[in-house]
Amino acid sequence: MSGSLTIALDAMGGDNAPSIVVKGADMARRRFPNVNFLMFGDEQRILPLMKRRKRLRAITEITHTDDVIANDTKVSDALRKGKQSSMQLAINAVREDLAAGVVSAGNTGALMAMAKLALRTMPGIDRPAIAAIFPTIRGESVMLDLGANVECDAENLVQFALMGDVFARTVLGTVSPSCGLLNVGSEEMKGHAEIQQAAAYLRQMGATLNFHGFVEGDDIAAGTTDVIVADGFTGNIALKTTEGTARLIKEFLSDAFHSSLSSRLGYVLARRGLRKMRDRIDPRRYNGAMFLGLTGIAVKSHGGTDAFGFANAIGVAVDMAANGFNDKITKGLEAFDDFQPGPLEVAAS
Amino acid sequence: MSGSLTIALDAMGGDNAPSIVVKGADMARRRFPNVNFLMFGDEQRILPLMKRRKRLRAITEITHTDDVIANDTKVSDALRKGKQSSMQLAINAVREDLAAGVVSAGNTGALMAMAKLALRTMPGIDRPAIAAIFPTIRGESVMLDLGANVECDAENLVQFALMGDVFARTVLGTVSPSCGLLNVGSEEMKGHAEIQQAAAYLRQMGATLNFHGFVEGDDIAAGTTDVIVADGFTGNIALKTTEGTARLIKEFLSDAFHSSLSSRLGYVLARRGLRKMRDRIDPRRYNGAMFLGLTGIAVKSHGGTDAFGFANAIGVAVDMAANGFNDKITKGLEAFDDFQPGPLEVAAS
Repeated sequence: MSGSLTIALDAMGGDNAPSIVVKGADMARRRFPNVNFLMFGDEQRILPLMKRRKRLRAITEITHTDDVIANDTKVSDALRKGKQSSMQLAINAVREDLAAGVVSAGNTGALMAMAKLALRTMPGIDRPAIAAIFPTIRGESVMLDLGANVECDAENLVQFALMGDVFARTVLGTVSPSCGLLNVGSEEMKGHAEIQQAAAYLRQMGATLNFHGFVEGDDIAAGTTDVIVADGFTGNIALKTTEGTARLIKEFLSDAFHSSLSSRLGYVLARRGLRKMRDRIDPRRYNGAMFLGLTGIAVKSHGGTDAFGFANAIGVAVDMAANGFNDKITKGLEAFDDFQPGPLEVAAS
Repeated sequence: MSGSLTIALDAMGGDNAPSIVVKGADMARRRFPNVNFLMFGDEQRILPLMKRRKRLRAITEITHTDDVIANDTKVSDALRKGKQSSMQLAINAVREDLAAGVVSAGNTGALMAMAKLALRTMPGIDRPAIAAIFPTIRGESVMLDLGANVECDAENLVQFALMGDVFARTVLGTVSPSCGLLNVGSEEMKGHAEIQQAAAYLRQMGATLNFHGFVEGDDIAAGTTDVIVADGFTGNIALKTTEGTARLIKEFLSDAFHSSLSSRLGYVLARRGLRKMRDRIDPRRYNGAMFLGLTGIAVKSHGGTDAFGFANAIGVAVDMAANGFNDKITKGLEAFDDFQPGPLEVAAS
């Protein structure tokens, strides 16, 4: 990438904001020397954090606002009363072409609603989706929707599949990515009406999209397909369940290594390999969920992440902007325009 | 427990049947000396496996049948054409009071449909649910439904909560078990209409049921609540995602221990602690999903399990039968009869 790239940051979003935002931006600055920032939030709290960060300060324009969207703010309230919030102002910077993308660790629902209103959806997409990259036994897969749309119809699911396909091609570099629809069984007759109908559409696409069929929860980590499509409710449960299970095993593993002197010594010897493993599944490494289907780039960081995780979320926005992801996805979607679905035969549940 | 207990086994269900069934029964025999078996399936395939298992043979009555329900058999076909199948005959043994419970590793949908028709639902329960015990950071929790009901209304979810409550009290021995409703956020306004309504009902129960509120996917492994309630679609995705994630980490862990000589040595030293940890999350240990809400005991073993896993599924059926679980759950449900739900105020999504 050449030239400079501006990223807008909601300095007040997240459990440990603005600290993790400022520290994360400073980490990202070292990784991406041509990036600069627009930071929105409480100047009184941001400036002290900048004191020892002269280089970050030099590439950051701070816009003060007192308004913050809290984690428990209802979406409707956020939209009505949050026009001067750090989140809304950061999004507006993308709409006004002052920034190439926005990153926030704040309230997901509010961020999605504001981004959708301010940035609008791409032609051919009715609803944007939240996508993230998952580590798998075979490498990496992308899953969407992770919570933007609690209820989805068949057409929404098909659009998610198309966006996921383009994402895997352009960002992950996968040739002819396979796409699976998350279900409670891989047999054709499984699942509810929406998922049945979506599968019927996707099966008709033939060469246009490499539809694998239904996949189950354990196929996510197995890497059975490059793209996993789900409604936002199911996708969110799968995402959070993955996080919880990983944390449980980490806890049990720590117990195992503390169970005896011999185990402690074993840990010391295996430490280097174990660290590599921990890095492979470090949730901070995979921090930064993308809002796909909007005309601007918006990345949601985990609310509880630290500076390293927030820096990675900035990295996702930088990658998407530098690779012209939104142009590619728009072009990719145009390729599907030729496809005309035929009459459907939907199997009964 | 005193006296003898008879368990009916579908010898032909599961990927490696009848071998795992016979071997699993032999393991269970040693663990439960007063148990005997009714085994249904292909005698020509079962008898050779019994040759070296004289003690098992002595406590097992084999009923021959050629009919088997395949994994891909549609539920409607199973019900119509499977009347002489090993699965149906094993269930019938419970209905006719010849056995205290039935265990099968076969087709889940067919097993549930057959068991529901033959054993019927308990008074006050509209739909049975599949439940299983999960290891958590705090101990063990029970989650239901894991796939019996792809779509659930608010009343179904409330009934699952009641059954889960009684299960945690009587089988897990938890005093005043806390109950959580699986959702995409813990805030009151999150989720779709059914889950909102179910939560409103459960909140009204006050002292009758210890309703914690909404929980998220990562609360399952965290052990935030003793009971986790979900519709069967969501519960199944969570269950399978847990399995997949555990497998992924196991794979990464194995890579870590093979990454260098020092790591290999570390593994040897830490082996005992690691084995203990592996046992704690061994899916075979948690094999045996219970069908709750039926008038008879039915346990579903994982289709891909081995003899050790199948023996554990038999153990679940034996435990439930020996503890008079069904009587307890019926009595426990009666305690909720006094509860009269008031008018509901449901928050918007």
